[in-house]
Amino acid sequence: MNEDRASNRSATGPALTYRRAGVDIAAADALMGRLRALAGATHDTNVRPYSDAYAGLYALPAGGLLAATCDGVGTKLMIAQALKSYRGLGQDLVAMNVNDLLPCGARPLFFLDYLAAGRLDGEVLSELVAGMASACLAVSCALLGGETAEMPGVYGPTDFDLAGFAVGLTDAQRLPKKERLQAGDVIVALPSTGIHANGFSLVRQALQRGNLSLHDAPQALGQAIGEALLTPTALYVKPVLAAFDDQALLDELRVAAHITGGGLLGRTQALAPLGLRLVIDAQRYTRPPIFDVIAEAGAITAPEMARTFNMGLGFVMIVSQRGAARLMQTPDSPWLTVGEVVSGTTGVELGYARSEAR
Amino acid sequence: MNEDRASNRSATGPALTYRRAGVDIAAADALMGRLRALAGATHDTNVRPYSDAYAGLYALPAGGLLAATCDGVGTKLMIAQALKSYRGLGQDLVAMNVNDLLPCGARPLFFLDYLAAGRLDGEVLSELVAGMASACLAVSCALLGGETAEMPGVYGPTDFDLAGFAVGLTDAQRLPKKERLQAGDVIVALPSTGIHANGFSLVRQALQRGNLSLHDAPQALGQAIGEALLTPTALYVKPVLAAFDDQALLDELRVAAHITGGGLLGRTQALAPLGLRLVIDAQRYTRPPIFDVIAEAGAITAPEMARTFNMGLGFVMIVSQRGAARLMQTPDSPWLTVGEVVSGTTGVELGYARSEAR
Repeated sequence: MNEDRASNRSATGPALTYRRAGVDIAAADALMGRLRALAGATHDTNVRPYSDAYAGLYALPAGGLLAATCDGVGTKLMIAQALKSYRGLGQDLVAMNVNDLLPCGARPLFFLDYLAAGRLDGEVLSELVAGMASACLAVSCALLGGETAEMPGVYGPTDFDLAGFAVGLTDAQRLPKKERLQAGDVIVALPSTGIHANGFSLVRQALQRGNLSLHDAPQALGQAIGEALLTPTALYVKPVLAAFDDQALLDELRVAAHITGGGLLGRTQALAPLGLRLVIDAQRYTRPPIFDVIAEAGAITAPEMARTFNMGLGFVMIVSQRGAARLMQTPDSPWLTVGEVVSGTTGVELGYARSEAR
Repeated sequence: MNEDRASNRSATGPALTYRRAGVDIAAADALMGRLRALAGATHDTNVRPYSDAYAGLYALPAGGLLAATCDGVGTKLMIAQALKSYRGLGQDLVAMNVNDLLPCGARPLFFLDYLAAGRLDGEVLSELVAGMASACLAVSCALLGGETAEMPGVYGPTDFDLAGFAVGLTDAQRLPKKERLQAGDVIVALPSTGIHANGFSLVRQALQRGNLSLHDAPQALGQAIGEALLTPTALYVKPVLAAFDDQALLDELRVAAHITGGGLLGRTQALAPLGLRLVIDAQRYTRPPIFDVIAEAGAITAPEMARTFNMGLGFVMIVSQRGAARLMQTPDSPWLTVGEVVSGTTGVELGYARSEAR
């Protein structure tokens, strides 16, 4: 994407970008292309084309499509380690995976985890798995199994890593319908609980640059920074599947995105078809204060923030006007109307940041 | 299991056990029990009981059972790093997972991988994924996707870890039939290519104790130790599924095991029902010489070896006498007849090591 360069200036000195914080997104993109080509050679006709790189689709012989995801929690685990607080990280791991199944309408069936550590600490692992089990229960997904590996030498004594895998079931009628997107469609969203589990390399460098500790509690935040950062990733399974399961609504759903790597700007940019612009109004939802704390500490520009973090919206869906009306009529609807699709330069307009198609 | 204490003596000084090499199996077992209880609370009737802890079974609404596994390559990756040879490790990762699907008769559908590194090295990752793709192609399994995470701070610049996840399809007729096991049944097996991807903590400590380097090439080995250690894990999908797919044979199959953690002794012990003894004759198959090199270097007792490594047999299956005759009649059958089931103390007899039920 091309971010708007005019928005990419910082009044407070050189901005801290995600690339400088240790994650080279451009190099990673090129590498991903190579890896995808290698994987593509293994695909037969059971593997269904699906533009979302965050889940794969496999057609079952008896009908139905399996959707599968794999994700970790990134360097959020270093914050959990520093604060010795692990249960929420278990929910993060489940949420990062099951939420990625939702844009293709898949209902999570089961989840597996990989836990590797220098030395198995029973308390830590029990907390992590308790968090996973509780999150799985909340979304009616079976924690089917996993692997716990003690790997002295690869990991330091107190170090560990986590990966998760989820499998869901969907069908062709529930897949994204990007070709139906049109001007006038409505952008709805579910609020995030905070930073979720993306962009933590940038978070840590911002805190360092701003001389902030995890125990500091800025007035605007109302809690310690570490506590805010460890807020578990929201689980979006129930509200999203309720929309997909409503037959009168299914035909009104166009596309959806779980807002993770690439941030609100990157993920919504990928939804925009040629000649349509997604306009999201930041006034229509509340941004959790942790985003401003991080931006200020690291002197991070608004576009860089929006290309890294969810900025308050964890799940975005585009629906017809009729669909939006029906969604909003649902009693206690958790959905927020945050914007609309207009004709114009292909891309996204967030007000404080924008992108255009390459 | 109780190993035979009489066999657990070393004539050459204190033996190097797997526990002393850094992996505490008893503590891990207790922890696994706690974690399984947490996971069990998330299971509804779609999750099917299955005694093999190395795959989970989930019933699809339209019929059929999904089998799912998760596994890594353990500290074998440190050998690959030391020798900068990664392609075989990609095959190891696929093999460790798809082979674990086979004891329940599941045909692998797709595989996903998790690759985390301190810094993404394009060459290393391309080699790893090329190895995975090649192994997936060989067993007609789609490499459906994965996650590649750059996690500076969690991993050192050149450090990485790998986890894999495979999903297969099976049905109730193909599940293990332990209750049908009887004296006179035949133990058949497929040879391993070497140590595969288990017990590498013990391997590394044995080499250190024996003052051996990865570049040493003992006469008996005929190649460098590092080269022998990196021999990729055999893929057992084709011969095992050929047996399951032969309708005349399916009813003759009792139980099977992919020989990984727990070694030949531990994994076959888990197959033995009350009052039956599995007698495997070491004279009936060739043990790759790397096992003797490691045992000698580390002064590791025969029972400890057999509780850690596959000892030359990577996949073991127990079939009726009629089934064994049919398997052996197959032209170019890769199966070896290695032993038989006899009445007696519940357990396993390998000749050089034995175990009895607790």
